[in-house]
Amino acid sequence: MNIQYILSKCDHSLLAPAATLVRIKTLIDEAVAFKTASVCIPPSFVARATEYVKEKYKDMGGVLFKLAAGAAKYVNGKIPVCTVIGFPNGYSVASAKVLEAETAIADGAEEIDTVINVGDVKDGAYGSILTELQLIKSVCGNKILKVIIEACLLTDAEKIEMCKVVTDSGADFIKTSTGFSSGGATLADVELFKKHVGKGVKIKAAGGIRTLETANAFISAGADRIGASALIQAAIEAGYTPK
Amino acid sequence: MNIQYILSKCDHSLLAPAATLVRIKTLIDEAVAFKTASVCIPPSFVARATEYVKEKYKDMGGVLFKLAAGAAKYVNGKIPVCTVIGFPNGYSVASAKVLEAETAIADGAEEIDTVINVGDVKDGAYGSILTELQLIKSVCGNKILKVIIEACLLTDAEKIEMCKVVTDSGADFIKTSTGFSSGGATLADVELFKKHVGKGVKIKAAGGIRTLETANAFISAGADRIGASALIQAAIEAGYTPK
Repeated sequence: MNIQYILSKCDHSLLAPAATLVRIKTLIDEAVAFKTASVCIPPSFVARATEYVKEKYKDMGGVLFKLAAGAAKYVNGKIPVCTVIGFPNGYSVASAKVLEAETAIADGAEEIDTVINVGDVKDGAYGSILTELQLIKSVCGNKILKVIIEACLLTDAEKIEMCKVVTDSGADFIKTSTGFSSGGATLADVELFKKHVGKGVKIKAAGGIRTLETANAFISAGADRIGASALIQAAIEAGYTPK
Repeated sequence: MNIQYILSKCDHSLLAPAATLVRIKTLIDEAVAFKTASVCIPPSFVARATEYVKEKYKDMGGVLFKLAAGAAKYVNGKIPVCTVIGFPNGYSVASAKVLEAETAIADGAEEIDTVINVGDVKDGAYGSILTELQLIKSVCGNKILKVIIEACLLTDAEKIEMCKVVTDSGADFIKTSTGFSSGGATLADVELFKKHVGKGVKIKAAGGIRTLETANAFISAGADRIGASALIQAAIEAGYTPK
């Protein structure tokens, strides 16, 4: 098990409603030190987080980290800021999700994790979901868009349908879960996605992944990113120190 | 215990991420039959819900129900549609919350339940919260604005501070909980609010209120509204039929 490789796939996340700026800054420092793929934080912190990264890590500008093969690139040696949209219930209106994405990108976000309207899936309104995702993708431009389908609420047939919709939308990732619903990532879902998403679509597993072993199993199953809050702590407890 | 009086104080709610249009329509039919204060539904259903109310209950236009003293008024005999903003985590940016409120009102919502940014409370940024609430209130006009402070995440001192902020914002209600966090309404919180909110501010208790007895206790403690999903079912099980 290559701990640095696992961490390089990790969106180091803090999405608790009571998160403070101090805790967000600590999260960023940890992510930089342990070279995770990104920090994933609430939208209201994005502007302050990118400002903090720019100021504190300005010496790192232009210096790319040496990462294990296949790992996420750093943007000018700084940690990319990821945020969440329509999160976690997914039932805000499309125009609000679009504004949230636009604002996050203007505030410096490099990655956007949006939640689909699960009610639309249940109503068979896949066209509405596709339109919404295309709108969000259009404001994302070259930023990374991940689509959370909240798999624990869907049947396998609905998950397969969503693999098609996410592929058609031009999004970069399909993501299993918000971590705020009745279930998190499962290996079976990652394997199902692997079989049904288009060639360009990667997989993010999130929700309940708290150990390096579990993260490793999800990566082996085909996940290119892991959303987690506790993996750096797990790495520290395993005696790992970043090089 | 006056069941009709309790129901007349109830925001009959369905806020599950997987709610379908069929279930929302059933919710509306129940709310009309049992004369609750409103139906509380996800933002993405507001336009379709108001359309449904207008169409199905058009004969009721202009006819006011006879309600118990102090009960909520019906708008032209139709059930008011309430929706949620920045829900449930509260950490979307202010501009997105404002757009959500504007859209909901344009779609026909009569009542708006918005969630504060709890991280701002923890950071002592009460000025940001007040500004955000004033912005939302300004787009609400004469529609009812309720402010969810997610009391289970706050200390008593923070709750008291929020009583002042909500009062200063001109909002109509302070509301205990989203029902999606670690705790719901408590009688102690309603009593605390009662002591610290300004004269014009009413109290909505929500989260975990599943029986008529509990709802009655919250009303007796000073709550003017109860957010709940199961009170009509409880009334049916108690043998109650609406007059």
